[in-house]
Amino acid sequence: MKFELTILGCGSAVPTLQRNSAAQVLNVLERYFLIDCGEGTQQQLRRFQVPYNKINHVFVSHLHGDHFFGLMGLISTFSLQGRRGELHVYGDKRLEEIVTFQLRVMNCKLNYPLVFHSLTREPALIYEDNVVTVRAFPLKHRYDAPVCGFLFAEKERERSVRKDMAEAFRVPVAFMHRLKRGEDFVTPEGEVVANARLTTDPPAARSYAYMTDTLFRERFADYVKGVDLLYHEATYGDEFAALAKETFHSTAGQAARLAQLAGVKHLLLGHFSSRYPDPKPLLEQARAVFPSADLCYDGAVFELTAEKRKV
Amino acid sequence: MKFELTILGCGSAVPTLQRNSAAQVLNVLERYFLIDCGEGTQQQLRRFQVPYNKINHVFVSHLHGDHFFGLMGLISTFSLQGRRGELHVYGDKRLEEIVTFQLRVMNCKLNYPLVFHSLTREPALIYEDNVVTVRAFPLKHRYDAPVCGFLFAEKERERSVRKDMAEAFRVPVAFMHRLKRGEDFVTPEGEVVANARLTTDPPAARSYAYMTDTLFRERFADYVKGVDLLYHEATYGDEFAALAKETFHSTAGQAARLAQLAGVKHLLLGHFSSRYPDPKPLLEQARAVFPSADLCYDGAVFELTAEKRKV
Repeated sequence: MKFELTILGCGSAVPTLQRNSAAQVLNVLERYFLIDCGEGTQQQLRRFQVPYNKINHVFVSHLHGDHFFGLMGLISTFSLQGRRGELHVYGDKRLEEIVTFQLRVMNCKLNYPLVFHSLTREPALIYEDNVVTVRAFPLKHRYDAPVCGFLFAEKERERSVRKDMAEAFRVPVAFMHRLKRGEDFVTPEGEVVANARLTTDPPAARSYAYMTDTLFRERFADYVKGVDLLYHEATYGDEFAALAKETFHSTAGQAARLAQLAGVKHLLLGHFSSRYPDPKPLLEQARAVFPSADLCYDGAVFELTAEKRKV
Repeated sequence: MKFELTILGCGSAVPTLQRNSAAQVLNVLERYFLIDCGEGTQQQLRRFQVPYNKINHVFVSHLHGDHFFGLMGLISTFSLQGRRGELHVYGDKRLEEIVTFQLRVMNCKLNYPLVFHSLTREPALIYEDNVVTVRAFPLKHRYDAPVCGFLFAEKERERSVRKDMAEAFRVPVAFMHRLKRGEDFVTPEGEVVANARLTTDPPAARSYAYMTDTLFRERFADYVKGVDLLYHEATYGDEFAALAKETFHSTAGQAARLAQLAGVKHLLLGHFSSRYPDPKPLLEQARAVFPSADLCYDGAVFELTAEKRKV
């Protein structure tokens, strides 16, 4: 029942030895979603012991090199290691051009199907299975093409049946799936047993949002309302607000303000400029606005436990 | 007067945590030549404290990903860090297509001139300045395009004038450059003073050859005759000779045999398959054929001192 984020790289345009280029992997009940794929991502996956062969979906926020220069290496390694299953890549449609052009020029035939999904400037549901949905939403960065944030949301689970109570009221097995959906049970004698006596609330559905390189815009909070965990770029401290604006980035204080506006539970800061060997001052600036905040670091793991988030 | 090789990555197709993808940097009297540029090369340059802003020439042996997937990141970082000077890239002409295609798609304007030089299937002098020449020569790998080895050779230096003797024979300053070139000196009285009495031999010109992914072919030894230092790929041990042949690679024993045929002074083995967490057995196989051999490892530095190589 894991819902776990691993930071593979939290640097910005120029990676440092402490912080690799942008990449994260989100494990939602053993589905491994790779979010951005800067240069060196395949090495970071090994370094932090992520079972990277389980990655079937890669989400690329935008076509700045620090967010996708590791994709070719990963695609290539998957093939060399005999992958057979589909790999789905979500990104700017020009990402497909870049990858297919290189594969063609290199005369490289992959062992497995590579499936591209184009992102647009409109909010959209881009992935769904029986336990999770992924939505893309548009941000604003100095880049003449879609720049997307991503929202990963676990689906609501069914209610948990209290075995002891179900037995006591002799609920037939055939009725269990209705019980799980919240129906009351009516005994053969006509007694109505409230569902709440027979079941318990399921763990709350968990959610994670990734807000990549972007200018601060209050309205972006609408895309990530109430998420459990929000990653927001904080390339600069508030002392560089003008520079942040000029380079279409956010400050730590702006990231915190966004978290506050969206009413998220917890905030993670990342994408730190190489001018901050130690980004602690950014954390202080953020916590002054939104106390429930933390810094990313390469290799950091943030888990949302089902228990903690119970309704 | 440095002639120093730093190994940035000595892994093969799939990098491991111990061995990054192919890349090396050769410092010849403060000219920094980058040889191959696998994914993560810019990080390795930082890790091993190479002054990478001094790199003006990048030589890419062939278009397999483990030899060039780091190039886009490096090109991009140079620009972000305000580079102004030309960067020269030597490689398969399709490398230019790959790089320029991506830059165009990303709408990325570099701050500095990027100059491409196409390599062909013919041996060629591809670089020359006042102290060093670089030659490319064709190898054989499973790849329908040029695969090049590179030979870096220091030029012969002028002879060193013995100050005491030049003073004793009152050699005029105007004659010094002729003395350095080996001419005898004739005194005003008509006495011939042999050059050997007035000068000493210069340090020997040093040379390094890089033999990337290739099948073993005896005739390739002709390209690297008598070099001081030869890097030769040794993807496999001799026990995998059939696999080496099938994948157009060399074994450790074949690398040693090549070194022996070429009469080189010292051999370095690299490009080890990920199946060898410890490549020591490959060294033993090589030394059985050619004793003056060593293993590469990421971060290894091999220096050819001018003194040691004196004639």
